[in-house]
Amino acid sequence: MPERLTGYPASPGAVTGPAARLGEPPSLPDTKPAVTDPAAELARARDALATVAEELQRRAEGKPKDVADVLFTQSVMAKDPGLDQAVQAAISAGTPAPWAIREELAGYQDALRAAGGYLAERVADLDDIGDRALAVLLDAPMPGLPDPGHPYVLVAGDLSPADTATLDPAKVLAIVTERGGPTSHTVILARSLGLPAIVACPAAKSIVDGQVLAVDAVAGTVTVDPSADEIARLQAGEQARVAALSTTSGPGRTLDGHPVKLLLNVGAEGAGFEPVAAVDAEGVGLFRTEFLFLDAETAPGVEEQEAVYRRLFEGFAGRPVVVRTLDAGADKPLKFVAFDDEPNPALGVRGYRTATKFPELLGAQLTAIARAAAATGAQVQVMAPMVATAVEARRFVTAAHEHGIASAGVMIEVPAAALRARELLAVSDFVSIGTNDLSQYTFAADRMLGALGELLDPWQPALLQLVALVAHAGAETGKPVGICGEAAADPVLAQVFAGMGVTSLSMAPPAVAAVRAGLRTRTLAECRDAAERVLTATTPEQARAVLG
Amino acid sequence: MPERLTGYPASPGAVTGPAARLGEPPSLPDTKPAVTDPAAELARARDALATVAEELQRRAEGKPKDVADVLFTQSVMAKDPGLDQAVQAAISAGTPAPWAIREELAGYQDALRAAGGYLAERVADLDDIGDRALAVLLDAPMPGLPDPGHPYVLVAGDLSPADTATLDPAKVLAIVTERGGPTSHTVILARSLGLPAIVACPAAKSIVDGQVLAVDAVAGTVTVDPSADEIARLQAGEQARVAALSTTSGPGRTLDGHPVKLLLNVGAEGAGFEPVAAVDAEGVGLFRTEFLFLDAETAPGVEEQEAVYRRLFEGFAGRPVVVRTLDAGADKPLKFVAFDDEPNPALGVRGYRTATKFPELLGAQLTAIARAAAATGAQVQVMAPMVATAVEARRFVTAAHEHGIASAGVMIEVPAAALRARELLAVSDFVSIGTNDLSQYTFAADRMLGALGELLDPWQPALLQLVALVAHAGAETGKPVGICGEAAADPVLAQVFAGMGVTSLSMAPPAVAAVRAGLRTRTLAECRDAAERVLTATTPEQARAVLG
Repeated sequence: MPERLTGYPASPGAVTGPAARLGEPPSLPDTKPAVTDPAAELARARDALATVAEELQRRAEGKPKDVADVLFTQSVMAKDPGLDQAVQAAISAGTPAPWAIREELAGYQDALRAAGGYLAERVADLDDIGDRALAVLLDAPMPGLPDPGHPYVLVAGDLSPADTATLDPAKVLAIVTERGGPTSHTVILARSLGLPAIVACPAAKSIVDGQVLAVDAVAGTVTVDPSADEIARLQAGEQARVAALSTTSGPGRTLDGHPVKLLLNVGAEGAGFEPVAAVDAEGVGLFRTEFLFLDAETAPGVEEQEAVYRRLFEGFAGRPVVVRTLDAGADKPLKFVAFDDEPNPALGVRGYRTATKFPELLGAQLTAIARAAAATGAQVQVMAPMVATAVEARRFVTAAHEHGIASAGVMIEVPAAALRARELLAVSDFVSIGTNDLSQYTFAADRMLGALGELLDPWQPALLQLVALVAHAGAETGKPVGICGEAAADPVLAQVFAGMGVTSLSMAPPAVAAVRAGLRTRTLAECRDAAERVLTATTPEQARAVLG
Repeated sequence: MPERLTGYPASPGAVTGPAARLGEPPSLPDTKPAVTDPAAELARARDALATVAEELQRRAEGKPKDVADVLFTQSVMAKDPGLDQAVQAAISAGTPAPWAIREELAGYQDALRAAGGYLAERVADLDDIGDRALAVLLDAPMPGLPDPGHPYVLVAGDLSPADTATLDPAKVLAIVTERGGPTSHTVILARSLGLPAIVACPAAKSIVDGQVLAVDAVAGTVTVDPSADEIARLQAGEQARVAALSTTSGPGRTLDGHPVKLLLNVGAEGAGFEPVAAVDAEGVGLFRTEFLFLDAETAPGVEEQEAVYRRLFEGFAGRPVVVRTLDAGADKPLKFVAFDDEPNPALGVRGYRTATKFPELLGAQLTAIARAAAATGAQVQVMAPMVATAVEARRFVTAAHEHGIASAGVMIEVPAAALRARELLAVSDFVSIGTNDLSQYTFAADRMLGALGELLDPWQPALLQLVALVAHAGAETGKPVGICGEAAADPVLAQVFAGMGVTSLSMAPPAVAAVRAGLRTRTLAECRDAAERVLTATTPEQARAVLG
């Protein structure tokens, strides 16, 4: 009987294909050979590091600026004269090239670690250089994304942001990882590409290259070496699912017609806003403006910003667009303002909190949004990230109104804001719940740590309880309550949220059809019943079981 | 009329005395002199760095190990041969010694910062070396704690952990800082020493050395150059406050006799547990066991731990003692186990979460506690830190029971745990609310950041709402709900907590008398009324106003 592995279904879909594993870093051989010709050994080491540097530089070409920057910095590190000297000294002292490179890099890493701060990024960068140099020296496969020459199911322990940044969706059929949580990079990427993905599947460790996998990322199962029957069943199920999606269109409605707006999360402008504006959705629930700021050498001017906002608003003419003001901080630093070093940047001065320190940034942004709104006659709303109290909410909403933006609200992503939602709604025109950060803070569990993924399951009753509390406050005050975190892309949770009284769901474009279809399977009364019952669950599994 | 400054009253008491400011780091002169004799200039630079290194080594002597380690590492850095070479090169190129030292240290700091991680600690250490070397070279006062030769009111922008670690309570009358929040290091230190303290007093910037200050850390005011009348009034008020405290003794009671246990937070063993056992309190509500682990080179054995627990339990014979199991993680690393680098250690694998990774540590600790409890017949309870779900709570409580410890519970310091308190209480024998971390996560505001201090005010309604929710769940399940964070040391909040149904308050020993006195000023019905009304407040100020 074929083996069936289970994991967390992170991005829906079903597909069958051959496995290819993410290249694992090579290991040093058990025995260390003697160095008979130090000059030749040094030449080998230098060749390997130069090869790595060149390859990294080559990979940087044509990549988006942030990806290219990381790769270029790595290539500079591989050519560091200090590293060259240290390796030379080690080889002269009789250490073979692979060991010399590994040990000298480890020395660098120790020094950085001992510095007392958190150097995860740089330490991992050095690991990567060492892995690549070793692969060259030991003639082992290069670590990183595989290239078997045909489409494949990518299997990995976990994917780093660097891996996901270079992933080619034309070659990858689906993603299966051993670790990772429901709001990890892997999930966000898979959903934005519409790729089926299963994370937190520890048994995936046993999968080897070339094994045929039937990935059912709706049920959360991976069948190794499936029978022809199973493959056919999976394909039929997937065809039915896709067909069900394509038969629905138009605004979000429950089975009995209760409206829940289907909105889009929109990030970088990329090749213009046309493709996203063409999606069958009711507007934009979250326009992330970070891309205008994060790579910029100087603060973008009002005119420059206005031009981008105009293009967006024109694309969505007649539909509402919610613009989130800049969400920057020590974890998303800007090149043109200095943030303090912070021991826990996620708990630091970020989002709206930066407006106290750099009020001119927010002022310029609100001016640009207001001008673009006036010029296009669009239904523009603004909201601020990382607001914790009604005092902050009032300050932001007042500023937005003073800039001539009629509708202003705040994100609910800090537990205190959810707990006091009524007070925040009293001074805002609407709120939008960011479930990713809300979940991170509610469970005190970093979204970037796979080890804590279980806590970040959007079906955790504590998270659902906060959403219910906010939705209830919205109903009491008669103001809209949206959701714009990853949880909004779950077609079954959508029913729960509708039952709680949430008025809109905002998600990555590929998720809209499934959420629309999910909403249409239940009446509002059924959704309300489900919303009440999930709160009596103790675990995410029990909560899911409520909707069978 | 004398000037009156206001701030946050962080540790009660009132005192009048001369101000002495924390030594500010020296500035470089405006003009850079020419170097006429590079050899002499180099000698000056080396002398200054050697003086700094010696002084740091001297300060390390006789200090607790953790303080000494930091100081010793700094002294090694001041003598770093790389720094010496770089300074030599800069002086040869015509840069005077003070500029050479500052610039070369800045270069080191840039390199560390550019490494991409958070190096706040090391960067600050290098600043400190530079400041001290400059003070020597420029013949300026040494930065750090002042030593005016008489007791003084310490005035500072903020106090670093290094400053507070070396503070001599015999010389400091009170502490006034411009920044800092209600749960900062300064506050915890001041309370544990029983020193009056006012933080978040921005106007303290204007205070100069030698000015007489009347510090009223009950009202939160600092009067500069007070009149004789004012000094007399302040002293009379303080005498009355102290007298009121000393007339109360015995267990915690409201005015009409409703019991609220007064317990102690106990940390390191220091000179034995006799002094703390002599405090008029009903037991230990939080015994922090970290000191047994954090400095140890190897994991402490069962026998070694058992001996410490026995001494504690014998000291508190007949009184309950709650032992918190090890709270370690990337932010409180152990020398003998490796934690992963984490971008936000406060949101990482810490507290009970480490038990999954290192189950043998928890097993050995529970064994040692159980043996010490059996040997002394003490009323021992254990609780786990950083529990988020009922699943985790059940796992810990079961393990404790299996080790033969009859009473086991969990800390409520993660918002999810507070929200689902009923489920956690259903599987626990009791819970204890850690308001410091609960507040940090509820507001997504790092306790270490002064800039976010306002959000961490224990009177924030969102925090009080979570406490009320937990206390309510305790009443429903008939199980005890304690508080062991800084908020438990506030004599007025104590009334609110009593009204919510909290059954015990655990605090630093010097706070007990004031909390006992605070509890006795209101009946339970009045406390209940206050508890209901604080939740209708929107701001901490409004919440405080409820109790006038």
